[in-house]
Amino acid sequence: MRAQRIAVIGGVAAGPAAAVQARRTDPDAEIVMFEQGSNISYSACEMLMLVSGEIDDPEQLIHRSPKDFQRERGIEVRAETRVDRIDPRAGKLVCTSGDTGVTSEEDFDKFILATGARASVPDIDGADAENVFVLRRLGDAIELRGFISTETIHHAVVVGAGFVGLEVVEALVKNGIRVSLLEPGSGPMHAHLHEELSTLVGRLLEDHGVVVRLEGLIGLAVGQSGRVSVVRTSAGEQIGCQLVVLAIGTTPNTKLGAAAGIRLGDTGAYLVDDRMRTNIPNVWACGDCVEVHRLVDGQKVIYPQSPTAFRTGRVAGTNAARRGAYGAATFPGIVGAQALRLFEQEIAFVGITEGEARHAGFSAAAVTITHLTRSSLDPGSSPITVRLVFEMARGRLLGAQLVGGTGTALRANILLPLIRSRGTISDLYDLDLLYAPPFSPRMDPLLIAARKAMRLREDTRRRI
Amino acid sequence: MRAQRIAVIGGVAAGPAAAVQARRTDPDAEIVMFEQGSNISYSACEMLMLVSGEIDDPEQLIHRSPKDFQRERGIEVRAETRVDRIDPRAGKLVCTSGDTGVTSEEDFDKFILATGARASVPDIDGADAENVFVLRRLGDAIELRGFISTETIHHAVVVGAGFVGLEVVEALVKNGIRVSLLEPGSGPMHAHLHEELSTLVGRLLEDHGVVVRLEGLIGLAVGQSGRVSVVRTSAGEQIGCQLVVLAIGTTPNTKLGAAAGIRLGDTGAYLVDDRMRTNIPNVWACGDCVEVHRLVDGQKVIYPQSPTAFRTGRVAGTNAARRGAYGAATFPGIVGAQALRLFEQEIAFVGITEGEARHAGFSAAAVTITHLTRSSLDPGSSPITVRLVFEMARGRLLGAQLVGGTGTALRANILLPLIRSRGTISDLYDLDLLYAPPFSPRMDPLLIAARKAMRLREDTRRRI
Repeated sequence: MRAQRIAVIGGVAAGPAAAVQARRTDPDAEIVMFEQGSNISYSACEMLMLVSGEIDDPEQLIHRSPKDFQRERGIEVRAETRVDRIDPRAGKLVCTSGDTGVTSEEDFDKFILATGARASVPDIDGADAENVFVLRRLGDAIELRGFISTETIHHAVVVGAGFVGLEVVEALVKNGIRVSLLEPGSGPMHAHLHEELSTLVGRLLEDHGVVVRLEGLIGLAVGQSGRVSVVRTSAGEQIGCQLVVLAIGTTPNTKLGAAAGIRLGDTGAYLVDDRMRTNIPNVWACGDCVEVHRLVDGQKVIYPQSPTAFRTGRVAGTNAARRGAYGAATFPGIVGAQALRLFEQEIAFVGITEGEARHAGFSAAAVTITHLTRSSLDPGSSPITVRLVFEMARGRLLGAQLVGGTGTALRANILLPLIRSRGTISDLYDLDLLYAPPFSPRMDPLLIAARKAMRLREDTRRRI
Repeated sequence: MRAQRIAVIGGVAAGPAAAVQARRTDPDAEIVMFEQGSNISYSACEMLMLVSGEIDDPEQLIHRSPKDFQRERGIEVRAETRVDRIDPRAGKLVCTSGDTGVTSEEDFDKFILATGARASVPDIDGADAENVFVLRRLGDAIELRGFISTETIHHAVVVGAGFVGLEVVEALVKNGIRVSLLEPGSGPMHAHLHEELSTLVGRLLEDHGVVVRLEGLIGLAVGQSGRVSVVRTSAGEQIGCQLVVLAIGTTPNTKLGAAAGIRLGDTGAYLVDDRMRTNIPNVWACGDCVEVHRLVDGQKVIYPQSPTAFRTGRVAGTNAARRGAYGAATFPGIVGAQALRLFEQEIAFVGITEGEARHAGFSAAAVTITHLTRSSLDPGSSPITVRLVFEMARGRLLGAQLVGGTGTALRANILLPLIRSRGTISDLYDLDLLYAPPFSPRMDPLLIAARKAMRLREDTRRRI
């Protein structure tokens, strides 16, 4: 039997995971991984440490060079190579080397799309000025770090108070830069956090000198230097600055597949089944360019998280390479758990919000409590605020949001298995969570929140 | 209807919880709480911070004085009062005031036994010498602190390397005292930790100058001062010392109930059902003097943990006070999760050990992995060792043991809901645990352990 040829398109996270798993599944396959950039297999999540200056060598973020990857894994790597077109039915791929500019066509039996997502950029003048940055790829972080190190920056404007926006704010503040944060929503992280918790995050930012403006970006004024010197907001403000960072979200890169007839879902990402199969039999997709199944409400969502990229990559790689003998790998879907450390505080959430729950038809309710992360006598103890989202009818736990000191984020993980298995708030209350002064107050904040939720539910039922 | 009279015997943890809950359930009941010591409602778990000197005022450990408790809760408190005898069938209680020495008899309708446990003491000469301590009640901690503060101690011997023993060792080392630790088992925490992890704890102790001797205590030589000056071990060693702390476990206080015909379980603690009822209809028991149901293997176990004392106390208080109108409260049983911080490292375990699993008839297997608590680039990252215990037949997760830096203990809690709901190692692997550099490496150590367990199971099945 002729060795099968597998093309993996994209080399940051899902792509390398898919390629490695394909190699494990079929030791004889010829596997080629294409990457438009010059680096493969790097840690996107640690990029902010480069911006802040906590690490100074980008090499620390790179797991493997193309050469090492090629040697160790037996996978051909084509870095700095753009894939222009695929024709899966004909088994053709056309690519252009950034190095030589030469365009060539090659034959492949199977295709794995791991093209990721790009930073969204608003369609306004000045968005491409040289002092306007996004943060998505390693190169973006290196450029921003270079700019911070060499230019005099009195004031920066960060647009968007989601994960990346807040991380950038902290990195800039750590470099002694005054920052204004523009967020057109109701507060920082408003897509994930209820107003009560969003307010806590806002206060934390203000405590560190950040000016939080609940306004949108409507224009960038470019000065004679070709740089943006003023940001205009929806409140009619004009903010002078020497640096702008846009952190308004990401958009899946689907042009290549869409042109080849790969179907997209409602989110705009590739539509795949739990085996990461697209609608074309010899094409799989994985990573930030696909939508995944969110278990709590059954929605398909874009969830550009590193572990999901790796997991969907492994599933795609296994299934693309297998030739009947192995069982198919499946992706189990996500509950959704994310966390951020911001100025020594921890922000986390898991599952879905009340809004998402109502949208899915749940009789959603929520409670908020504030307690301590540890025994009050432990010097490391600090406040923690927990909001539980649950279903009134059966008490099913649907989600949670947490803001507090060390030990806050890992508590979101404690809720994950409960939410996944459709557990209730009383299942949570029945957990004998460990107790010791350095780890928890006598009654864990999660249990206190569960008890409050149970009482709310009892009271409501009594009234009915 | 005459107000019912409820006697709560014991005032540290379960007793106050029961009394408060009884008050909530029946606002008219006359509730009397008896406590032999002078303090009620205090934090036993923080006592070691008093011994180490991290806190210097015992008052910080006391939640409420008898007077406050009485005023705020409407519960009569008789501190320094010994209950000599109860006759539940006749509704009689005989007690003696430590203050006046007067013995009196009173009538009660219902009795709640919350008599706790006492430190076990070996039956050898010298065990009652004035420089030999145990640590169980607040008074013990105050006495030991007083001794450390006023005496010159070059060398101390701690007997027993369980929770209390290790905490005492750390407290003494922090006071500049050289410590030898005697442990007749295979290593520190051997009842809970597999040898691989127990060895890590032993090394940690040795790194802090503690001499760990895997030997038993066989004798105490009392010098002319009336103090123990030499400890004799099962290896024939004679260890000179100025202080001995016995930390060899606890024994439930059941004399009072046993004399009244309350049945004991195989563990020697009171036998109760999930409503905390004893075999005598108007007697309930709760806290460290009862045995509880361990869910994983169905065993009845002694589990003297503070949250369990409070929870069983609340259940007993509700059920004792209710008069038909309320539904009965039930105690859901325990999985078992405990943790300790020792010299900035965290030690935790959850569920059952391989030995316990085999004893219960499970085809138990285990894997151990060592990874990092956080991204390797985060300055707070440190090694973590995880051992998962699971069932070979279906892959059911039965327990885990963890030793590592900050973030280790809370990971035991993540496993708790899975173990409670009879989840498998592949359920664990399917969790989308959160990822961010300050909280986890790209693949959480729990997931790495789950994957190793799944591979072991696959390999074993393939061989069969």
